[in-house]
Amino acid sequence: MPYFDAASSAPLHPVARQALLAALDEGWADPTRLYREGRRARLLLDAARETAAEAVGCRPDELVFTPSGTRALHDGIAGALAGRRRIGRHLVVSAVEHSAVLHAGAALEAAGGTVTEVPVGRTGRIAPADWAAALRPDTALAALQSANHEVGTRQPVAEAAAACREAGVPLLVDAAQSLGWGPVEEGWSLLTASAHKWGGPPGVGLLAVRKGTRFALPGPADERENGRAPGYPDIPAVVAAAASLRAVRAEAAAEDARLRVLVDHVRERVAQLVPDVEVVGDPVHRLPHLVTFSCLYVDGETLLHALDRAGFSVSSGSSCTSSTLEPSHVLRAMGVLSEGNVRVSLPRGTTAAEVDAFLTALPGIVAGVREQLGAPTGASAAVSPAGEELVVDSLGKRCPIPVIELAKVIGDVPVGGLVTVLSDDEAARLDIPAWCGMRGHEYVGERAAERGVAYTVRRRA
Amino acid sequence: MPYFDAASSAPLHPVARQALLAALDEGWADPTRLYREGRRARLLLDAARETAAEAVGCRPDELVFTPSGTRALHDGIAGALAGRRRIGRHLVVSAVEHSAVLHAGAALEAAGGTVTEVPVGRTGRIAPADWAAALRPDTALAALQSANHEVGTRQPVAEAAAACREAGVPLLVDAAQSLGWGPVEEGWSLLTASAHKWGGPPGVGLLAVRKGTRFALPGPADERENGRAPGYPDIPAVVAAAASLRAVRAEAAAEDARLRVLVDHVRERVAQLVPDVEVVGDPVHRLPHLVTFSCLYVDGETLLHALDRAGFSVSSGSSCTSSTLEPSHVLRAMGVLSEGNVRVSLPRGTTAAEVDAFLTALPGIVAGVREQLGAPTGASAAVSPAGEELVVDSLGKRCPIPVIELAKVIGDVPVGGLVTVLSDDEAARLDIPAWCGMRGHEYVGERAAERGVAYTVRRRA
Repeated sequence: MPYFDAASSAPLHPVARQALLAALDEGWADPTRLYREGRRARLLLDAARETAAEAVGCRPDELVFTPSGTRALHDGIAGALAGRRRIGRHLVVSAVEHSAVLHAGAALEAAGGTVTEVPVGRTGRIAPADWAAALRPDTALAALQSANHEVGTRQPVAEAAAACREAGVPLLVDAAQSLGWGPVEEGWSLLTASAHKWGGPPGVGLLAVRKGTRFALPGPADERENGRAPGYPDIPAVVAAAASLRAVRAEAAAEDARLRVLVDHVRERVAQLVPDVEVVGDPVHRLPHLVTFSCLYVDGETLLHALDRAGFSVSSGSSCTSSTLEPSHVLRAMGVLSEGNVRVSLPRGTTAAEVDAFLTALPGIVAGVREQLGAPTGASAAVSPAGEELVVDSLGKRCPIPVIELAKVIGDVPVGGLVTVLSDDEAARLDIPAWCGMRGHEYVGERAAERGVAYTVRRRA
Repeated sequence: MPYFDAASSAPLHPVARQALLAALDEGWADPTRLYREGRRARLLLDAARETAAEAVGCRPDELVFTPSGTRALHDGIAGALAGRRRIGRHLVVSAVEHSAVLHAGAALEAAGGTVTEVPVGRTGRIAPADWAAALRPDTALAALQSANHEVGTRQPVAEAAAACREAGVPLLVDAAQSLGWGPVEEGWSLLTASAHKWGGPPGVGLLAVRKGTRFALPGPADERENGRAPGYPDIPAVVAAAASLRAVRAEAAAEDARLRVLVDHVRERVAQLVPDVEVVGDPVHRLPHLVTFSCLYVDGETLLHALDRAGFSVSSGSSCTSSTLEPSHVLRAMGVLSEGNVRVSLPRGTTAAEVDAFLTALPGIVAGVREQLGAPTGASAAVSPAGEELVVDSLGKRCPIPVIELAKVIGDVPVGGLVTVLSDDEAARLDIPAWCGMRGHEYVGERAAERGVAYTVRRRA
């Protein structure tokens, strides 16, 4: 039963399990205590910090363990902002950062600060020039992920770091998705990561703060972890996190090469096997194990359930799979199709046979969902008699129905004619332009309607 | 090798270990995902929440899991304060709360709010009338521990809750030390706890917020745990925490009765076996497994090391065992001796033989430390010729030396005569008056000196 959602959480690495069990016996006591059980716990904690620091590429006293990657981001950003409050209260982020970063930005705005979101291109990468232009004299911090969690695109961290250095702005790199594959390029001031993404246990994040970086964690003081991570440390989990990080790093080069081939195969074959599919993310600057694609005329939730019944565990950035009914902010920032979105992220050890089984099953499953939804097939209906504008009322209908209804009637207007779709579904704003791009039609624009939004398309082919 | 520091961290309960191992296999995936691994993780998380809620005495949807007891306190207090910001920014706490509560209070003060610390008596209990008197129209929150972590004294929670209810102030009860022994008395609005205190794993705190309590966690938003505990949940640890809480509760009545006898025995025998010892904490309203005493003329750190060498792991609130070189705020608030302080907290399963071994070893170890420090023995020196005031210069000397030097010269002045000790050690402020109480002398008072503080004592016996 292949599990293809390593980017959400990787199965526990055998080394992590082994280390966790050993440390449960040796590392349960309070490491600040003077007696033998406390000293043993302290030794384990110190050793884990050295191991993790070596993998991160920092000094042990620059690294603390947090309860999660999210807490590392929240506290890392809050601490860096507070440390430079006198400089200003401006934060620079990319538009495709993890929601923990964007939420930290929203909290800053609510408190009177400002945030600049640097846009990304269609493959999800920022342009270093845009990054440099966003830095201001009052910029307290810039935050950039090393690689994206939804589409796998790697960011030009070294260039962004150079721009930050020149502007005197500390750079926080969110390395949650990449740290298991290798160290982050030089130039960062703060770095965060999350152990369960590389096969470590849940309950452990990393926060590294380079010496010389101004940092002042707001909130109640606490002596643990150099004052940067309040609360009793989870030493067994920390030991397991460090041991598994070293283990996956030792296997990283070989596994990177192997999974890269499998993902390239998926990228190529999905586009051949499934009609009306868009493979997204950067084909070159990318994580080795992750590929994302979107399928026209497909309901993401139904697709996920069908794949799950067939034994494949994947995730999706489609609006119907989020609690807010909005498509993923990453896909939106990239301007790519969000309906029928599927993220495949291969855990270490995934075999070619498992990937082939997925590629064999996928076309039939997508076709089945499309049939269920009444998606258009092949040739369009007869050409409409007159050149008037067609209006399709899709109000109250959810993704992918508005796009399906648009596709069904586009043949009813002559080339050059207009179709307007009325929709109150947030996904339409992203998916109707994306459909136009994939189909070679012209997206004219949107305007507010009496209810919902009117999206207008000109038939070009 | 008896470990007698369960109040810092209890050894992992066998049920916790078993549950953790099982949940590592079943609960590693993201519980918000739609596929089978995610659904399995969700089921485990939901079941753990139901189990823990039953033990707490609340609804499952009132309870969230935090990464530690400290985070539960920090976030519980911050959320409750923010939820009632329009009412006011006044916080009421007892003077013997856990440092996480006092630090949260300090953070409130730094942000412009105010804190009232309700004093405690010599046994560490608040007076309900003092508590009620501290509540004001602008009080946003009151926080009271169910039982003290250093001396084991239980607080009159029901009376405090009644006063809070009458004043319309929500009460947060820090149940970190008591939850494994039984539910907290009725009347709380928020409750916190920490799993590693009852034999659960590290990495899990509990935060319960009663329906109808205003609560708004400041900081970046996060969808996990009802928006009250950001970050990826540690489901294996949460499952282990809930299972072990149920297990220790099933054993609680029998173990309470058994350990209570052992602790009563320690309370009685220590006072008989060790000269110049003060057993502190409430003898009746107390945790079953915890006893604390202080030994005159003893350096706490040396004593702890000597006990450790003899195979006994205990902790101490003496100034020399804290990083700040200040005695425990709990002992200070109680006004009891802090030098040579020893906390014995018995883990479940402790045998009478282990306790007897401790009682057999202790007198010799204390005597050894006293001899090393040149503590006074038995009768005092010859009476001094004149009635003038004696001044002892203990500047630059740390606890327990100032008290030892005082004790050595008190016989040099006649009854009614004065001895003044010059000291720059914070512990002297607590321990010189405590010594007077134990010895039957009069503590006249303190005044600032050219260097340090001058503490004056009148010989009475």
